[in-house]
Amino acid sequence: MRQALALAEKGTGSTSPNPMVGAIIVKDGKVIGQGWHKKAGGPHAEIFALEEAGADAKGATMYVTLEPCNHHGKTPPCSHAVLKQGIAKVIAAMKDPNPKAQGGLEYLQENGVETQWGVCEAEARRLNEFFIKHVTTGRPFVVCKCAATLDGRIATRIGDSKWITGEESRACVHKMRHAMDAILVGINTVRMDDPSLTARLEDGEGNDPLRVILDSRLSMDPNAKMLRQDSDSGTLIFCGPQAPEAKREALVKAGAEIVEAPEMSGFLNLDFICRHLGEKGLNSLLIEGGGHVHSSALKSGVVDKVCLFYAPKILCGDDGVPMFAGPGPDFMADSIALKDITLHRFGNDFMVEGYVMDLFDERD
Amino acid sequence: MRQALALAEKGTGSTSPNPMVGAIIVKDGKVIGQGWHKKAGGPHAEIFALEEAGADAKGATMYVTLEPCNHHGKTPPCSHAVLKQGIAKVIAAMKDPNPKAQGGLEYLQENGVETQWGVCEAEARRLNEFFIKHVTTGRPFVVCKCAATLDGRIATRIGDSKWITGEESRACVHKMRHAMDAILVGINTVRMDDPSLTARLEDGEGNDPLRVILDSRLSMDPNAKMLRQDSDSGTLIFCGPQAPEAKREALVKAGAEIVEAPEMSGFLNLDFICRHLGEKGLNSLLIEGGGHVHSSALKSGVVDKVCLFYAPKILCGDDGVPMFAGPGPDFMADSIALKDITLHRFGNDFMVEGYVMDLFDERD
Repeated sequence: MRQALALAEKGTGSTSPNPMVGAIIVKDGKVIGQGWHKKAGGPHAEIFALEEAGADAKGATMYVTLEPCNHHGKTPPCSHAVLKQGIAKVIAAMKDPNPKAQGGLEYLQENGVETQWGVCEAEARRLNEFFIKHVTTGRPFVVCKCAATLDGRIATRIGDSKWITGEESRACVHKMRHAMDAILVGINTVRMDDPSLTARLEDGEGNDPLRVILDSRLSMDPNAKMLRQDSDSGTLIFCGPQAPEAKREALVKAGAEIVEAPEMSGFLNLDFICRHLGEKGLNSLLIEGGGHVHSSALKSGVVDKVCLFYAPKILCGDDGVPMFAGPGPDFMADSIALKDITLHRFGNDFMVEGYVMDLFDERD
Repeated sequence: MRQALALAEKGTGSTSPNPMVGAIIVKDGKVIGQGWHKKAGGPHAEIFALEEAGADAKGATMYVTLEPCNHHGKTPPCSHAVLKQGIAKVIAAMKDPNPKAQGGLEYLQENGVETQWGVCEAEARRLNEFFIKHVTTGRPFVVCKCAATLDGRIATRIGDSKWITGEESRACVHKMRHAMDAILVGINTVRMDDPSLTARLEDGEGNDPLRVILDSRLSMDPNAKMLRQDSDSGTLIFCGPQAPEAKREALVKAGAEIVEAPEMSGFLNLDFICRHLGEKGLNSLLIEGGGHVHSSALKSGVVDKVCLFYAPKILCGDDGVPMFAGPGPDFMADSIALKDITLHRFGNDFMVEGYVMDLFDERD
């Protein structure tokens, strides 16, 4: 199953809105077929594995990271193909959380194929956390990413931030962008950094995420770099009800899509924005700041996971730009708690990955 | 040698101002004697090991974490005892950096004992970093310790800080206190928390460090907990030239020692303070904050190492109490850089240990 999970992971960045899936067919202790879902709209993992196994599939066991689909989508149901090729046993890591596609294991079981599920389920769920969140809630899985000094500053008091972290950390950020459907920043970040917000992988490849900008008043420059660059993705700007019509037209002309969102206490409503992105079919959203956007996202409860990169530096002053801005709580007990913490090293930098606790989680 | 280093470590907290040392005597592939330096003034590691080996020491090999001493201090020179017992070969992890005690290997070599050094030297140096700093510079090794949220806050805007980190982190802090000769905090921390600043180990033991307080105006309450408690260590308060005489008398009466230090731009001169503590024979100083003391210590260049504990929490506001206060630099390149970063996990918390880079270190 771990091999199948590793195969599935090869689809990172190109299967959305579908899940990543890997399948391996084993007979007499030998792998006779393997496949992974390469691209939304293309054949599923099971089909590639069955093709490779050919007639040998008869009587073999299939390991698959997700229950085979049972519906006609862009491709016919995998459950039927698995049955037809004579697979004797299917072991799935997890059931399909998609109500439209699930039922594959049941179908196979009813038709005499032995089935089992729950093997490496935790790993399979984590691999497809974006897909699972979207298919079960209609909203994207939201990751809040930030790079700071050890004393929690994302820039100096005059805004110098290039570069806090080193090359290895930045390479990881580009991998995250490649893996995710959209990336969100506030207008201040656009004004300060004029970023391209593309995914630049080491091999020169990378799928650019949809660029999402929070810009209440539409003060973005239509000549901003992200609107002029060559990219396989577009730019979507959320504005407030007060945004001037002339600005709207200029930005649309520059190639941006504009959507009006309601405002709450001076901030664009992130709940609305996530719902909108979910309806557009986006599985995942990477929030890259700055400090006011990070705070507003965490406080509004839309964030699922945080990825905080730290460089081995201390700014040693309280006037630098903080990771999280705005008013904080009076009591430590009212801070945002994280669970399932993982530490990752990137050269001299490190990254803290943690999931936002919800009301049902027990705090320390 | 690793066994000898592990033995040496058993002396943590009780050998200062001496180094921690471990020794193992091996003959025909078997350990026939071992010892470690238990307490300043008591026998050295080599003597314990030689006693255990007895007459078998003749022709054996000794592994020792530090070159055997060659001088009459509180005990006779170990080099002579090693020679007398007939040890054939001495392997030391490192030479003795103490000019008064060094020369043991040379003496043994001249008298026909085979010698070697430099085995596990990096580990041996790290084990005795406090001792080495003090014996070579006359100043204590200074560790700056801090516990914060992931966004770098040591308390909320109303000062709530109990508890940021969990039990396992706090147990580690008590071990650090036990291992160090002195602990320093600012008067604000005393006022806010009224701390005891003792070393409370899990087994109920622990050597209390000397408590050092920075209190320019001597505004400390003579009824503060640390002056009333039962402790094997005293309280030393550094004040500025403006401190009122009446306050001085009241605090001396309450059991504190008072030393006047020069002031620089409103802060007590930490360079003077470290020199003073070094002259008192203290090998190590743990700085436990708050934010102004941390910044002033790092900026004045007295800090050798930082240990930053983080809890998996985000305060999510810029009005909490920062880890490092005061004005910061304009450029990231002027931040304090750390090297040799180690990450330690304590349950859901983690600690970043790093050494302050000096001018001779190459920055990223």
